[in-house]
Formats: sequence, structure tokens, C-alpha cells
Amino acid sequence: MNKMRVVIALGGNALQQKGEVTAEAQKAVASKVGATIARLSQKYDIIVAHGNGPQVGNILIHEETAATEAAPAMPLETAVAMSQGQIGYWLAQAIDNAFRKEKRRKKVASVVTQVVVDHNDPAFKHPSKPIGQFYTAKEAVRLIKSKGWEMREDAGRGYRRVVPSPQPIDIVEKKSIQTLVESGAIVIAVGGGGIPVIRTKVLKVLKGVDAVIDKDLAAERLAELVKADIFVSVTGVPNAYLNYGKTDQISLGVLSVREVENYIAEGHFAVGSMLPKVQAVARFAAKKKVGIIASPANLERALERRAGTIIQ
Amino acid sequence: MNKMRVVIALGGNALQQKGEVTAEAQKAVASKVGATIARLSQKYDIIVAHGNGPQVGNILIHEETAATEAAPAMPLETAVAMSQGQIGYWLAQAIDNAFRKEKRRKKVASVVTQVVVDHNDPAFKHPSKPIGQFYTAKEAVRLIKSKGWEMREDAGRGYRRVVPSPQPIDIVEKKSIQTLVESGAIVIAVGGGGIPVIRTKVLKVLKGVDAVIDKDLAAERLAELVKADIFVSVTGVPNAYLNYGKTDQISLGVLSVREVENYIAEGHFAVGSMLPKVQAVARFAAKKKVGIIASPANLERALERRAGTIIQ
Repeated sequence: MNKMRVVIALGGNALQQKGEVTAEAQKAVASKVGATIARLSQKYDIIVAHGNGPQVGNILIHEETAATEAAPAMPLETAVAMSQGQIGYWLAQAIDNAFRKEKRRKKVASVVTQVVVDHNDPAFKHPSKPIGQFYTAKEAVRLIKSKGWEMREDAGRGYRRVVPSPQPIDIVEKKSIQTLVESGAIVIAVGGGGIPVIRTKVLKVLKGVDAVIDKDLAAERLAELVKADIFVSVTGVPNAYLNYGKTDQISLGVLSVREVENYIAEGHFAVGSMLPKVQAVARFAAKKKVGIIASPANLERALERRAGTIIQ
Repeated sequence: MNKMRVVIALGGNALQQKGEVTAEAQKAVASKVGATIARLSQKYDIIVAHGNGPQVGNILIHEETAATEAAPAMPLETAVAMSQGQIGYWLAQAIDNAFRKEKRRKKVASVVTQVVVDHNDPAFKHPSKPIGQFYTAKEAVRLIKSKGWEMREDAGRGYRRVVPSPQPIDIVEKKSIQTLVESGAIVIAVGGGGIPVIRTKVLKVLKGVDAVIDKDLAAERLAELVKADIFVSVTGVPNAYLNYGKTDQISLGVLSVREVENYIAEGHFAVGSMLPKVQAVARFAAKKKVGIIASPANLERALERRAGTIIQ
């Protein structure tokens, strides 16, 4: 019998705990996630997507702070590719090592992933996603002139670059990812929401653009394209909630797409936090599939529909 | 009929021309290489390996110059992974776009690749490969104490870190790479010689080590493991030569493994330049296969054994 195919999106902070940001600390966290993924792969075919917020942020800080003529800063789209190499390596090694500890072997592969967005996406007219370091007003003016960046004042902490966050349309490497999964591999893909690319107007070739694709929406798109049965957004809390953090907080268990859409409309989920996860999971569930929100701790039970928030 | 399987190792400087080091300039060079690879893929199954010298050098300069407690420098092994994401993305997009321009489609995938080395490799006792930026004597002393780096004075230009350059033993992702090639994909792998990992003594799990694996030797190892028919080291010159650069320079055409080994013993090939390429190609040819040295311009003719240096 074929195993169920599951796309698991790990939160951007999933590799950082207690604010520890060294490579060693992040690898140590990855090893726990890796053990969970390896265990789950006995029951499911698994594709792992992951965020890259803190990691690409630090890459951009290094690239921009230390840029010289001989060693110029890489643009955001290439920095996303760099973060895919970085995190993809850590996760692949962590999952692989979980098998080695048990003297089992299974293919694990990280695929550098480009995600197509529409150059007419309204997000390109309204950049909204702050990235990289904080600058002074003077530096911000200089960067607007020299690089054409859009800069925005951020809560009294200085100025930050804001970039578009367009919708994912297609995953360039979807067929390679599918080939690997069908051959029994655990695949790590679409890291950081993927490297954003547009199709150029005349030649219709791919071209990187400085943007950030929401990692849950990109992972959901991949889940659709590779015909996954289940899409899980893994986050720091075991469920989605109504009235989150209030005295009348209610944990959401199993619910319908219609119900979740009503809760979204009622503003129950925090923008930039639980909202994109709930939206991505509901989008997948709307295709007559199963969408799940879970934490690393209840992920296994959630896949058996005995914990987490299940939208179906 | 099955196509011949070819592993093509692109030189570390293959993406940089005329000293232009911006992402845009490197992508422009990649697009030419991409067109060549796409054309060759009509006749051959292709795996592309690539160097990362200038790119990982700049990543290290940025990481180390701009490191802070909140954004610490990534270690060399993780920087190699980052360069695989970066260059793997550029090459994959360039090859993919060459197909799109002709309204053809073919899978292209970059796989983040770990290469196993032996922790008893004598190279670990004799670090020889200089990497990253130049430091003053005072900074060098501080880095030896704080990071345990081995530093060496470099031709009056300052002090540089030197790291071991061990032999490649195994390619962790070899089966995934083989699966992709057999499915018709062009695969980009083992970038920068691969992320160097050892097997730990007790648990026998993988652990990254700060080292640099020669990219031609790593690509050759991959060529053996995926049972390639031909291994090509692509460099800036169309052939290997005897008495290179002298008035009696002789271009090498077709020759045997025995002949090439004699020329190596006679010191005809420059250490750190043509020597590792000739060694890698001869190592492959010694397995009763074909090893080639060629330039981008004569690569196609060399694969037909009508140009380049052919060792068989």
C-alpha cells in the first residue's frame, strides 16, 4: 500500500531556541526535528519545507555590512538560495543521522527550489515584508537612491527595507521533487518560501526578483502540485486558537474549511503569525484534502488526527 | 539506447569573467554555460559539478567581517553549503532558461551535497588550503587563540587561514543524484567539492568539518559512484600541456593513463591548478573509463574525442 504523502512546513524559528543562533546551536535543534521526521517516515512519505527568517536576516546583515567592490553583497533572491543551502544541509544531515543511529538508511535530499510568482501580483506595488537590518534615516535615504529599495520606519527602531510578498504560482523543481519522493527519498524543498522568480515578458524565461514568498503558502502550493494527502504547518503552539491569549481562549480541534474561513473573517488569527498558517492550511483543505496545524511535540498525534488543529 | 552519462566539473572561476563578481555578472556568465549544458543534454545524461573558490571566499569575508553575537559567522562547512545554494541556483536557472528559450522542457535540479572524508586522512595533520580573507599578524594570533584556526603567512600579503584538503571517500546523496539522472534530469551536485563531513567515531553519524575537498577529485568520486561513462574537468584552457607556457609547449591530445602518470611524475602540471585536474581525470580513466580536460569552447568536440585532452 502506498504511504500517505505529507508536506510538513517547519516554522522559520524552528531551528532556533532560546535565542541561540550559532551554527552548532541550530544543528542541535535540527537533530531533534530530524529524529521526528525520520520516525514519521516509517508511516508517511515526507517532504519538508522550512522557513528562513532569522537565517536569511543574518546572511543579509553580513552581506550588506561587509560589502566591498571585490566582494559585493548578494541580492535578496540569491541570499534566499544561500539560506536554502545552509538550512537544507543542516536538516538533511539531521534526518540522515537519525537513520544512521538506528542503522537504517533512507535517501534524504535537499533540492534548491525556485518558486514562480506573477510580475503583475499586486504585492509588487505594495511591498510589505520587512527584511534585513535596521538603518538610520540618513542611510535609508542613501539606499533608496543607490539601490532603489523601499524603506519603512519600523516602530521607532530605525528604517528597514520592505519587499513584496507575492503569491506562489508554480514550483520550478516540482517534478524533480516528485521523482525523489516516489523513489522513497525524504525531500527538503521550497526553503524560505522558495527563491522568488518571475517569467520575463518577452522570452518567458525565469528571473530572480527581490521578494519574500510566505513559506506556508509556498509549501501549500508544493503540496498541491505533488498531490500530497496532508499538509501540516508546524509552529510553536500545538493548535490554532480562538481568542488566543485571553481568558476565554479556545483550542481548535477538528473543523471544516467553512468554519475556519468564518474565524479568519472574524479576525481571530494574528497577522504575520498564525493567520498565514491558517490560510495556507485552509487553502489546502479546500481541495478536499487535510490541513493540519501542530507543534513539533504533537505532530505525530496530529497526523493521526488525535491532536492539533485539523481542517478537512 | 541509453545516453552516455557524463559528469562535468566546472572550474571555480567558471562563473567569473574579467573580475566581475556581482550576482548579475556571474548569472550572465552562467547563462552561457547553461546554454552549452542544455545543448549537450540532447546527446548525454549530465551531472554538473562546480567549484566555489571565489564565491565561498566572499561569503567567508562577509560572515567573518560582520559577525556579531546576534549574527555570528557561519563555519566554513556551512559556508560551503551556502555557496552550493547560491551557485546551484544560478546554474539551475541558467540551464532551465536555455530550454525555455527553445520551448523545450527538461528537469534541472541542484542537490545540496555532503562528501564523506576520513578523520584519519593525513590532510587533517597538514592543513594546506588557504581560504578567506587576509589578516594582520596580530589578528592572526587572536584567531589562533579564539578559534583554534591554523594561520599561515601568504607571500607577504598577510596571514590567511589554512584548512585541510582531505580525499573524498563517499557522496552522501549519491543515490538521490542517480535517481534524478535516471529520471531524465540534469543534476547539479557536489558543489565546491561538497560539504566535508566525517563519520563520528562512536555513533558513526555525519558531522561537518572545516575543510575543503578538491572539486575535481570530489566530482571524479561522484562520477565513479553514479557509474558515469565520461568525466570532464572544464578549465580555462582547451588542453593539458607539456612545458606549459614555454616555447616548446606541447598540447596533449589522446593519451593513456600510464603516459599521463609519467608526465605527472615529471612535474609537468602546476600544483593547485592543472595538477589536481589531471590527477582526477587520470584516476577516472584508470577505471577503464574516459577522462577529459577541455575548455567551455571545445567541450562539445572533446566529448566526441575530437578535441581536448582525452585520457583513456
